[in-house]
Amino acid sequence: MKKIINDVDTFMDESLRGFSKAHADIVSVNYQPTFVFRRECRPEKVAIISGGGSGHEPLHTGFVGEGMLDAACPGQIFTSPSPDQMLMAAQQVNSDKGVLFIVKNYAGDVMNFEIASEMLDSECETVLVADDVALAKDHSTGRRGVAGTLIVEKIVGALAESGASLVECKAIGDKVASSTASMGVALSSCIVPAQGVATFELAEDEMEVGVGIHGERGRELMTLSSADEIVALLSKAIDDDLKLTNGQQVLLHINGFGATPMLELYLVYDIAERFLADKGVNVTRSLVGNYTTSLEMAGCSITVTKLDDELTHLWDAPVHTASLRWGM
Amino acid sequence: MKKIINDVDTFMDESLRGFSKAHADIVSVNYQPTFVFRRECRPEKVAIISGGGSGHEPLHTGFVGEGMLDAACPGQIFTSPSPDQMLMAAQQVNSDKGVLFIVKNYAGDVMNFEIASEMLDSECETVLVADDVALAKDHSTGRRGVAGTLIVEKIVGALAESGASLVECKAIGDKVASSTASMGVALSSCIVPAQGVATFELAEDEMEVGVGIHGERGRELMTLSSADEIVALLSKAIDDDLKLTNGQQVLLHINGFGATPMLELYLVYDIAERFLADKGVNVTRSLVGNYTTSLEMAGCSITVTKLDDELTHLWDAPVHTASLRWGM
Repeated sequence: MKKIINDVDTFMDESLRGFSKAHADIVSVNYQPTFVFRRECRPEKVAIISGGGSGHEPLHTGFVGEGMLDAACPGQIFTSPSPDQMLMAAQQVNSDKGVLFIVKNYAGDVMNFEIASEMLDSECETVLVADDVALAKDHSTGRRGVAGTLIVEKIVGALAESGASLVECKAIGDKVASSTASMGVALSSCIVPAQGVATFELAEDEMEVGVGIHGERGRELMTLSSADEIVALLSKAIDDDLKLTNGQQVLLHINGFGATPMLELYLVYDIAERFLADKGVNVTRSLVGNYTTSLEMAGCSITVTKLDDELTHLWDAPVHTASLRWGM
Repeated sequence: MKKIINDVDTFMDESLRGFSKAHADIVSVNYQPTFVFRRECRPEKVAIISGGGSGHEPLHTGFVGEGMLDAACPGQIFTSPSPDQMLMAAQQVNSDKGVLFIVKNYAGDVMNFEIASEMLDSECETVLVADDVALAKDHSTGRRGVAGTLIVEKIVGALAESGASLVECKAIGDKVASSTASMGVALSSCIVPAQGVATFELAEDEMEVGVGIHGERGRELMTLSSADEIVALLSKAIDDDLKLTNGQQVLLHINGFGATPMLELYLVYDIAERFLADKGVNVTRSLVGNYTTSLEMAGCSITVTKLDDELTHLWDAPVHTASLRWGM
């Protein structure tokens, strides 16, 4: 295992200490239990909180700040955070306007956020993100939450910042979540430090289509094909789900899993944009980069969100976090 | 070679097409010869232009925009751009206030920018960036230009935006360049698409200390050690060069080479910040992320720039590019 690391057991805390120092103008970190929270909390807004296993950075810690999350609860790598992290984070940033949890659809995350919301002595709602169309809608565990999560976080965060109510924030979150579809492909595995070995194996000519962000099996193990063919596969699955129609405006997000060069991500953007344009779909907003990673996994995902004027306005609203910043 | 690619020969153009569409609000791209330029050029400012081999994205194309570069000339991967790219870019964004080239110290880049400046029918100056302290100051080819380049580009870009003269822009560029030192370590090689094989080999327990951003040999091939030991090695070399003194304010930039997770980069930040703090050096500005990459190489570099009020003010000035944005 080749990593820049001192000790598997202290890795997360050491890294978070660096994160909190590098972004001391935006965030503070609490340890035991661990959560990252906005340095200047605003009591008059709904508190927006997310979290999940670490190893997907910048998701979620990199999205704490003005106009997005009030707090994020990082678990150990690829491991759900505990209810006490969520509870303490909520108590730290809570207001009398209530708390909204944004939760990726994984059994552990869902269960622990549910426990936290029951323990929490204030109004609480949850937006579940399940944007990975690699799995069928009626899959036994439901669809996984992947790169579309940051789009939900950005848009809900913008609405909360404007002073909207908990009911309104929950509604917009559900709306974005149901307007968003993603699918990914892996060219290599990553290595979780505590395991020390690759999560899965891929031969030199293989790719895992429909992979999850923890290296979960996807739709199909296939022979590595051209960028055109890969993007067509992913885009078609997304289109089948969202049923995009002529004239629809969308946000197109190309996400790298960690080890994919920007040159490849922009190539994917080009092909996906043309796929959509051929259907009369207009890409009016875009985001390209490594935002929802799987440590050093190679590969990428495509995410499409159907936009209307309301969602576009909230996407454009100012944001100031470690890894997403504009308008301020 | 596992890459998301259609064809080695068309890869760069396809990728640039995606880049130009994803950031159509900021940049335009010219093909044959290829250069990226600011969509809205301002004739009343000094034109700031950089360029170099591709494969280091977001450097330089991702830094074209308000408050930073007016144009960037991407060569083929790890290959210098040609003089006609630089000349045409300069003619596109030129003003009567002159042109400043920011050039990383590689023989091909230096030669071609020199030819372009001789062919250019307007006032032209060059700032040479040679921040890699892995090589001795009197090395036969001089020191390489690495991750410190973006700091030069940001600060010079801010001064140019304020309406400063060519002489003033050149002077601040030389000042930042001489106040900046970097050193990196590689844990793995990358694969240049046209070659199809790894640039160099590293055993499972080896690291290349002092590596260049094209996988050039560094100071020493060493056994992979702890993060503490790696950061101490790099930080000491930087400190030896900059001769940092008690009370000095610095910008600390931790740069990933492409395949290094953010968790590791923030861990490196934490250790480097403490190394500096132990010497009484204050990190007052920071930047952590994959900014000057070597395709999918694993590893990172540390860059330190000595700051004063002037440089801090220019670093803080608004910038709006694809990959560096704040204040607007």
